[in-house]
Amino acid sequence: MIDVVILGTGNVAVHLCKAIQSSETITVKQVYGRTKRSLISIPTEIDTTTSLSDLKKSHIYIIAISDDAIKEFSKQLPIRNCLVVHTSGCVPINDLDNKNRKGVFYPLQTFSKERQLDYKTIPICLEAEHNEDLDLLKEIGLEFSDHVEIIDSQKRATLHLAAVFVNNFVNHLYTIGYDLLEQESLSFDLLKPLINETANKINSIPPIEAQTGPAIRNDQKTIQNHLHLLNNNSDKDLYRMLSTIISKFYGKEL
Amino acid sequence: MIDVVILGTGNVAVHLCKAIQSSETITVKQVYGRTKRSLISIPTEIDTTTSLSDLKKSHIYIIAISDDAIKEFSKQLPIRNCLVVHTSGCVPINDLDNKNRKGVFYPLQTFSKERQLDYKTIPICLEAEHNEDLDLLKEIGLEFSDHVEIIDSQKRATLHLAAVFVNNFVNHLYTIGYDLLEQESLSFDLLKPLINETANKINSIPPIEAQTGPAIRNDQKTIQNHLHLLNNNSDKDLYRMLSTIISKFYGKEL
Repeated sequence: MIDVVILGTGNVAVHLCKAIQSSETITVKQVYGRTKRSLISIPTEIDTTTSLSDLKKSHIYIIAISDDAIKEFSKQLPIRNCLVVHTSGCVPINDLDNKNRKGVFYPLQTFSKERQLDYKTIPICLEAEHNEDLDLLKEIGLEFSDHVEIIDSQKRATLHLAAVFVNNFVNHLYTIGYDLLEQESLSFDLLKPLINETANKINSIPPIEAQTGPAIRNDQKTIQNHLHLLNNNSDKDLYRMLSTIISKFYGKEL
Repeated sequence: MIDVVILGTGNVAVHLCKAIQSSETITVKQVYGRTKRSLISIPTEIDTTTSLSDLKKSHIYIIAISDDAIKEFSKQLPIRNCLVVHTSGCVPINDLDNKNRKGVFYPLQTFSKERQLDYKTIPICLEAEHNEDLDLLKEIGLEFSDHVEIIDSQKRATLHLAAVFVNNFVNHLYTIGYDLLEQESLSFDLLKPLINETANKINSIPPIEAQTGPAIRNDQKTIQNHLHLLNNNSDKDLYRMLSTIISKFYGKEL
């Protein structure tokens, strides 16, 4: 049995607990949270602590806290020569403190506590200093995903950047669509089939071939009508910039 | 039996033919295309013509051509007092010529010739001058979709604008993600589960609540690292603008 201690209580930590609970070869030995309150999302059958000095011995310690806190937190850990990994897309492996063996276990997915996820489809991006540690990470990764990849910190940074474009930025475009419809008392449900098809399409066609709409045709009449309809200046600026970028990308001069 | 004549041979025209072919109450009586070559995507069992003077008598004429050509084309039609509708999201109903009864049959979806679509889920947005024409449009709409809505030209323009944000602009963000990964020899497959989950999530959570990432936290360290990784100036500008808009939208000052 592989023992895992999870340090953190956010969305990734909670999903890690859930994913590992269904495993027969890995067990969550303990979860650390800063406060008792922060631990309420952790399944009750898992042992928890709010004190780093009470950390149990484990094969691996997984830091699942916010990116900007990882470096300092890893210094505070009262353990030595253990395998300590983080789950961040954008934090280099070497931000982890030298007193432990370093690694990364980055599940490339967007996590909300309330969403049920199919863990088998989530790519797990791994990195470690030592081969034996990488083997252990692979074993854990393959336990709940079919897609385990070894990816170094530099490539992982690019992957995370790309994820910001296709997840964070895309989601904000959904929000703009939602707000536009709300202003006209139209239901967001009208856009859902289009949103789904847009995402599904790129499973069979590269996105560069799936592009349609006024910007790729440099259809200035429609573009100007749309700008006229937008009453929020930042949405106008964004519409203008994206249309210009798309027109130029496909070789239509503006 | 309701007779339909389709004027045009693009993606929407081809999908309309396919959708109507499976109907027992509607039939495609004829498809008009400017050239014989343009008609090759039309199923061979459907009657076609390249001459407007050969148009058959029909209950409805559906113009499915590019948005900016609809107005002029409707003037050229050698028919009178017939129901003529277009399929565009952004062209007002009154752009159609006065000599015929006007209407709109706008399927809110992105169409590629090669994609199989589940027509039942596609919202069909209808508009007509006369109630009897609206009834006919509803009958046709309900024949292949479960979602038929009456939406006037003004609301439809906003819907189309929102569709540009959640489809055209989103797809270009997928292209940026694709290119970033290609530069690092990483497979785009790595991003597909994230893209799918991002789209699926908004079925259960409004997008405003699904937002995550460095911009909503105004995490300047990650934002600066990402800007440093981007070597294309337009991608940098876009990243900067979207991050600023998201940070401000969620009340984080920059």
